[in-house]
Amino acid sequence: MVPDSEIINRAAERIHPYIHRTPVITSQRINKLFNTEVFFKCENLQKAGAFKTRGAVNAVFSLDEKELSYGVATHSSGNHAQALARAASLRGIKAYIVMPEDSSKVKINAVMEYGGIITFCKPNLEARESTLAEILKKTQAIEIHPYNNYRIIAGQATAAKEFIEQSPKLDIILVPVGGGGLLSGSLLATHYFSPETKVIAAEPEKANDAFQSFYSGHFVPSVHPDTIADGLRTSLGDKTFPIIQKYVNQVVTVSENAIIEAMRLVWETTKLIIETSSAVTVAALLENKLDVNGKKLGIIISGGNVDLNNLPWIK
Amino acid sequence: MVPDSEIINRAAERIHPYIHRTPVITSQRINKLFNTEVFFKCENLQKAGAFKTRGAVNAVFSLDEKELSYGVATHSSGNHAQALARAASLRGIKAYIVMPEDSSKVKINAVMEYGGIITFCKPNLEARESTLAEILKKTQAIEIHPYNNYRIIAGQATAAKEFIEQSPKLDIILVPVGGGGLLSGSLLATHYFSPETKVIAAEPEKANDAFQSFYSGHFVPSVHPDTIADGLRTSLGDKTFPIIQKYVNQVVTVSENAIIEAMRLVWETTKLIIETSSAVTVAALLENKLDVNGKKLGIIISGGNVDLNNLPWIK
Repeated sequence: MVPDSEIINRAAERIHPYIHRTPVITSQRINKLFNTEVFFKCENLQKAGAFKTRGAVNAVFSLDEKELSYGVATHSSGNHAQALARAASLRGIKAYIVMPEDSSKVKINAVMEYGGIITFCKPNLEARESTLAEILKKTQAIEIHPYNNYRIIAGQATAAKEFIEQSPKLDIILVPVGGGGLLSGSLLATHYFSPETKVIAAEPEKANDAFQSFYSGHFVPSVHPDTIADGLRTSLGDKTFPIIQKYVNQVVTVSENAIIEAMRLVWETTKLIIETSSAVTVAALLENKLDVNGKKLGIIISGGNVDLNNLPWIK
Repeated sequence: MVPDSEIINRAAERIHPYIHRTPVITSQRINKLFNTEVFFKCENLQKAGAFKTRGAVNAVFSLDEKELSYGVATHSSGNHAQALARAASLRGIKAYIVMPEDSSKVKINAVMEYGGIITFCKPNLEARESTLAEILKKTQAIEIHPYNNYRIIAGQATAAKEFIEQSPKLDIILVPVGGGGLLSGSLLATHYFSPETKVIAAEPEKANDAFQSFYSGHFVPSVHPDTIADGLRTSLGDKTFPIIQKYVNQVVTVSENAIIEAMRLVWETTKLIIETSSAVTVAALLENKLDVNGKKLGIIISGGNVDLNNLPWIK
């Protein structure tokens, strides 16, 4: 079922020993630039470098004895892979991770460091799904989808829940949207714990499936999402889209240039490493897509896993 | 006089409204790598991006009415320039900053944003000193030396004081040394507030004046300090050296390659942007210069002001 406040509270208690209560930081220069008061919730400082840790730990630690004995599995080239491998190792169970063969070395190494059992496949969705299906059949492992899973959503909801506890009353919380796990979790937490706060989603113009889905009122998949924000290329799911449709206030889209400029601006002003997918929120401010004048604006920085050899502003 | 515990406590109270109580963070990957428990005190997240803010605010807010009317002055191409300009603007007084004409645009802009009055000079110590002398004569401004000043030292001491309050009992605090302001402050704070904790200094081999001074027992200046750690090129001062000589436990030196590797490692594992001068401490771990096995090790990350277009590991 869609997580209610009780389920989110229990998720927060369940994951508490295994995650960071990440700090909320501010920057005078950012505030001055946008004439608003911005609070950054730093999930880039989360264990394994992204909010994905919350959902993965919640999902793994919610499994019963029998499920645990089979282990967990997923396909992911990104932060969910690391987060799930780490959560499984904390619980002492196996994590089967299907990764496209062109995944970055940094990400492959991180999954291996956490003890994940990697199976490589061709870098396309069909190969990822069919490879995972084989593994599930062979091992009976429990599939933990990166976002289209209510335990994952409840886990991700704890980021906004903490944010609300740590900050003054926020007028707006701004969240990036890819598959919608963080967004739907943030919407639920805000609905239950700070209902006057608006939640606005930001996504790349080049992967504007959430924008199209929300404003057309029916699910539109992400087709050829050619954006630098690699965490936001996925389509919404049938569990995340209805929550988004019901509660989100606005979805805005941003250009690739603004994403790069925003990423650099945040690095320079806050001294925090944020990934491209986290920069879409600040990009929305740069492109003046929101009325934030004089408001208290919360921004969830979703992650900080970046290939430091390949920064988009260095040619 | 050399700051005592009372002076350091008063400095902490004085600067409290104008600075961040910066967070202390940890990284499992770093701990695993060095088989130790590392606590990072994040002065890169300090206002104006470096610990220098502490000393500058303490010095400016310690001035009497008459001194205030003349304003303050210094020569600096780096973090002290920004910090002093910011402190002066908070106090509503003038800050005359002498900067070498080849200073980076980022640093010039930051000083200007804080309202500093910049005078450019040739990029050498003689020109910096003579230009500053002229300004002091013309304006009667109070010179605030970046480190050889007891009010500055008392301000910098508040970083280690906070660190001690925020952490479990530390066996060692590891600090970069350039002119010795942060180091001498850290030594005094540790002497008064956690006397069992050892303080160890790290500096580049290519700017090893503190190493030479400490082990020879007499002041050795920094000559042609050709290191990438640009904040550590300065010589010790006659106020900082005696404190270092009296209290420091050990001074270790590190190679340029280790500095670059350490900087990258910290970025990747902690998601924090640290500058080259802050990387010498972790470089000492990489080069196995310290016995830290199983110890609780505090590291002060001194700053995060980096030219993001020019990262040393990207050719």
